[in-house]
Amino acid sequence: MNLEKTAARYKAELFNSIIPFWEKNCVDRQHGGYFTSLDRDGTVYDTMKYMWMQWRIVYTFATLGRIYDNSKWVDLAAAGYDFLTEHGKSPDGSYYFALNREGVPAMAPSNIYADCFAAMGAAAMFAASGDSKCKIEAESAMRSYLRRISNPKGQWNKALSGMPQRKSFGHYMMITNLGSVMRENLQTDEFEVNARETLTIVTEDFWNRKTEMFFENINLDGSFDLESCEGRTLNPGHALESLWFLLQLLENELSDGEIRNICDYIYKTYQFGLDREYGGIYYFMDALGKPHIELQWDMKLWWVHCEALIAAAYAWNYTGEERFARMFEEIDEWTWSHFPDSAYGEWFGYLNRSGEPTHMLKGGKWKTCYHLPRCLMECSKQLEQKKAKQDARKNKEDNT
Amino acid sequence: MNLEKTAARYKAELFNSIIPFWEKNCVDRQHGGYFTSLDRDGTVYDTMKYMWMQWRIVYTFATLGRIYDNSKWVDLAAAGYDFLTEHGKSPDGSYYFALNREGVPAMAPSNIYADCFAAMGAAAMFAASGDSKCKIEAESAMRSYLRRISNPKGQWNKALSGMPQRKSFGHYMMITNLGSVMRENLQTDEFEVNARETLTIVTEDFWNRKTEMFFENINLDGSFDLESCEGRTLNPGHALESLWFLLQLLENELSDGEIRNICDYIYKTYQFGLDREYGGIYYFMDALGKPHIELQWDMKLWWVHCEALIAAAYAWNYTGEERFARMFEEIDEWTWSHFPDSAYGEWFGYLNRSGEPTHMLKGGKWKTCYHLPRCLMECSKQLEQKKAKQDARKNKEDNT
Repeated sequence: MNLEKTAARYKAELFNSIIPFWEKNCVDRQHGGYFTSLDRDGTVYDTMKYMWMQWRIVYTFATLGRIYDNSKWVDLAAAGYDFLTEHGKSPDGSYYFALNREGVPAMAPSNIYADCFAAMGAAAMFAASGDSKCKIEAESAMRSYLRRISNPKGQWNKALSGMPQRKSFGHYMMITNLGSVMRENLQTDEFEVNARETLTIVTEDFWNRKTEMFFENINLDGSFDLESCEGRTLNPGHALESLWFLLQLLENELSDGEIRNICDYIYKTYQFGLDREYGGIYYFMDALGKPHIELQWDMKLWWVHCEALIAAAYAWNYTGEERFARMFEEIDEWTWSHFPDSAYGEWFGYLNRSGEPTHMLKGGKWKTCYHLPRCLMECSKQLEQKKAKQDARKNKEDNT
Repeated sequence: MNLEKTAARYKAELFNSIIPFWEKNCVDRQHGGYFTSLDRDGTVYDTMKYMWMQWRIVYTFATLGRIYDNSKWVDLAAAGYDFLTEHGKSPDGSYYFALNREGVPAMAPSNIYADCFAAMGAAAMFAASGDSKCKIEAESAMRSYLRRISNPKGQWNKALSGMPQRKSFGHYMMITNLGSVMRENLQTDEFEVNARETLTIVTEDFWNRKTEMFFENINLDGSFDLESCEGRTLNPGHALESLWFLLQLLENELSDGEIRNICDYIYKTYQFGLDREYGGIYYFMDALGKPHIELQWDMKLWWVHCEALIAAAYAWNYTGEERFARMFEEIDEWTWSHFPDSAYGEWFGYLNRSGEPTHMLKGGKWKTCYHLPRCLMECSKQLEQKKAKQDARKNKEDNT
């Protein structure tokens, strides 16, 4: 693989296809905030404003605007920021799950990921604008997220005493990511104090040594429940995402052994999640191959492949092992031959098992301007770093 | 189609494949109640006891036991009944959504369909056993269902003022079915007082004359919301199910014109829901063909095809129109060539769009011993009635 060409391809897709699509179609110029339910050609097919989808756009455009010094993107993020902070907060400081188009709260603050992405969006906004109110907002949302993590569903929790209590992988995954995002944008290490603890939790508690898989849910006592669907649920995309989050957060602190260990988990997770018949990576799996409770378990989702690409790019750059070059190439080939929409730009989000789009949408209740642009940015960055290392080594060899 | 042979095929499947599978595998002899998460071969893969799945087994076995005078099936229903009434009721008389295997409440009573199927199960149990406590239970569950219909999610409702309030088709559909079930099992017309009103609501309010489709959700003022995913959602299986419910409930009261009208809706719903590329009927659709919010919208589900078969059989028997014979034959052909599992008995529940099973399960969180046995019973009954009418007409012709 030509590193330079590949990195350029990723960047070109970001700047020539993905960002223009969202810039053109997502801004609600009448009421503020964004449209995220965008059809194949960018037409709006629903105006509900899901907060975690909204805040992810703030995060993406504020980050891009800061890195590429583009005030147009910062303004686009700011327009959403103002709408979301004006209308989006419930009296206790948490964020509603959804607003209607005009900004009237439509769904209760029943999901802590709204707070999580508000923290990320506001932090990115602070870094892009320097406006201290954004820092205060980021810290407030972050505190709300951390406060709620022990009882994430609050009054909307339906579980009673007969339901096994479990630790959920997603919360630890996001803590890891938030540590990096807060460090980068707020220049604070206040939220990464537990980074090493998170490393232990993710790579030891959720990793099942016997089956060599990451579990989505484990019992409070750390044991694995192989008797229930919930206990056996695997989510390879989540696992791959959290592994590159760990490499990113702890990049300067990890020993070579720890890096090799994390990258080995990346490889094993990919090998297990791979569909050897049709290619691509499954959405959900059952650890013992029993029926999965989710009807869409075998679908191929854009974000799973985005996260797998980033994980492979990190592992390749960090270890230099050839197997990660192959892994990146394999996922790159399948992803780029199935997801991009050559007719209207941007990527399809949902394919059936054999790789045909089941939905023409470019954005919806769960797809917004986030995983894909981050993938294109992170991969091009890792590939460029890899190329620079190769060049430096070559120069050194030439000079000796 | 040979009516006699077809009816015999449906009955043979019921008694030689479906019922033996559940009899053998679903009873929890240690704790009471049933296992509904059954893998392809009947192995239990999860022990959570979802109440509406549990009560549907009570309903099915009590009904079969009564009709076929088989005390073994009544006993099987009774064993579940005792467990469910002992452990399943919350202090306010509603039913928990789920119990764990031992009977400890695991999920709050957040879903009124638990009450709905408790009412049906207890009523069928009364008719099968004559035990008056079952009648009291049925009436209590029925009252709980009716009391909660105006605010079905209660304290777990996440909708706020920015969310459009809507009428949901499912509630009116179930009211229709409950009217018939209560009349048959309790010999009461207490719960069918609004049968004609339901006919009007279902066939006029939820039917969109312009697009000729049943909508799943309509605005409180009776208008259709074509601007949102929820407003545009269609569920052909639900529509077909509710149409034969109406024919059943009002069988002695409908004018010929009303029957023709309902059957015409059956035909149009089928024609719209049919996948002309791969065959079978879609799970969810969008009225304007926009992206559907459900990832599994294009899957082919056993219950949709069961309900379509019953609707076609009713329409054919009630109208004698040849187009319903064709409709029944078409669905029969696709259903029987895709869903039955010739290796282990029973039917697969979930196929992808092209008709391949995505799950090997025979029962799960949403599949139990209910739609399929009811389909086999109802279809064979309608076909036998149709045959009897043909024979009577033939005899009459021969005699004149």
